[in-house]
Amino acid sequence: MKQKQNYNRSKKNQPSRNTQTQKAKIDLFGMHAVSAAWVNPKRHIHNLYITDAALDGFDQALKTAHDMGLKRPNPQIVDKGFLDHSTPMGSVHQGIGLNCQALEDVDIHDLIRANEMREKTLLVMLDQVTDPHNVGAIIRSACVFGAAGMIMQKKHAPDLTGVLAKTACGGVEHVPVAYETNLTRSLETLQDAGYFAVGLAEEGDDNLKNFSNHEKLVLVLGAEGDGLRRLVREQCDALTRLPTAGPISSLNVSNAAAVAFYAVCS
Amino acid sequence: MKQKQNYNRSKKNQPSRNTQTQKAKIDLFGMHAVSAAWVNPKRHIHNLYITDAALDGFDQALKTAHDMGLKRPNPQIVDKGFLDHSTPMGSVHQGIGLNCQALEDVDIHDLIRANEMREKTLLVMLDQVTDPHNVGAIIRSACVFGAAGMIMQKKHAPDLTGVLAKTACGGVEHVPVAYETNLTRSLETLQDAGYFAVGLAEEGDDNLKNFSNHEKLVLVLGAEGDGLRRLVREQCDALTRLPTAGPISSLNVSNAAAVAFYAVCS
Repeated sequence: MKQKQNYNRSKKNQPSRNTQTQKAKIDLFGMHAVSAAWVNPKRHIHNLYITDAALDGFDQALKTAHDMGLKRPNPQIVDKGFLDHSTPMGSVHQGIGLNCQALEDVDIHDLIRANEMREKTLLVMLDQVTDPHNVGAIIRSACVFGAAGMIMQKKHAPDLTGVLAKTACGGVEHVPVAYETNLTRSLETLQDAGYFAVGLAEEGDDNLKNFSNHEKLVLVLGAEGDGLRRLVREQCDALTRLPTAGPISSLNVSNAAAVAFYAVCS
Repeated sequence: MKQKQNYNRSKKNQPSRNTQTQKAKIDLFGMHAVSAAWVNPKRHIHNLYITDAALDGFDQALKTAHDMGLKRPNPQIVDKGFLDHSTPMGSVHQGIGLNCQALEDVDIHDLIRANEMREKTLLVMLDQVTDPHNVGAIIRSACVFGAAGMIMQKKHAPDLTGVLAKTACGGVEHVPVAYETNLTRSLETLQDAGYFAVGLAEEGDDNLKNFSNHEKLVLVLGAEGDGLRRLVREQCDALTRLPTAGPISSLNVSNAAAVAFYAVCS
């Protein structure tokens, strides 16, 4: 408990206990999302707001960051109401919120360069998938299956904050995301660098597994309903679909992504 | 347009246009969920509430039910505000809501009997997975991969309505769900009937694919975080885990379910 206090509960700068009417800028919330950011050396962190009840669950992250010598602000103990008020209505913030800088921007060339020497690289491109729950779940799965990065379209993609980051369960700290202007051109760039582009589309063949041999692979998924846009679809080297047997033919996009990751990774 | 009016827009029994303060009992909402229920001969339907804007999207369901000779009430044209008010706050009802009876209860014996003659049967059991979005997504995936039924624990499982049914995208009309009191005993019953029970657990082996040969298989998934409860885990014939490569080790439960379905079906 003594050690805990060393890195944990400095009393200075704490908002008072009656802060329901105050409001802080919260970029990340939820225990997994905030813990992963807290121990990520690439994150600049301005403020941590945490309830007494949530402190225990955050103990390991505090200790890890301390052991790593990371520069971190003193946690500010707040009431649940303060976080309720500072996050979008209905957010499951779990008593913890973080005000931090966005991670450094990466682009498609960074992703290519960073993985040049790897034996196998899997990237995922989302063509106008906009629901933050879905994108968050896809980042989490991408992280679980060791994907090296994600590409989304600058104008039609959610930010890596809030409910997206919470759903990603810390995945946004590990999977670099490049926001690009023109996805068709990004695919060309990837193909020039040796990537094979496989789009998920209903008109594809049921041969997902066959692509697991490609050393450099980019999986391309479109929005539910609309699917891949024509130019993006046409730029893919191959189209594939998931094998389905039942009366509903399409999976939720995050479920489809998880299955596709598994199929090409196993 | 003439034909459309025959089955579509009888003006009797319509609530007035200023109904924001009125409230109806809505069991299902969302275009896919309501359309699938509307054409399901096993559904008794009391009332359909739909906005003018949503009518076009519902046209096919109206026509199909009409062609099938299903007894259906006249759609009641309502304002968006009426549906906003009649569904839980923030529901994405897409301008359509249904008041209907629950489908007939099934139990584990019904599931066994209904699939006795099938060459291959896949069932899924959820051990205290309570989030309706997750359960809904799992029902959708179960339907896509042709699973024959689902088992949940009576006391720790959401109803097959509202956001769950919307997330399931019509899957609740196709995948029978048995709510059982004691899941360990349900597993025993299934095993007596020839089912092989595979639990997803971190301590399992990375051999998910190996179970695809079983003619009768039940996949058992636990809640995120807690996983399978001890007695349920011990009752399984085998434990398995998904192969993972990245810094996060666990998928969202609906993503894990989709991957497991794919692995044992393909």
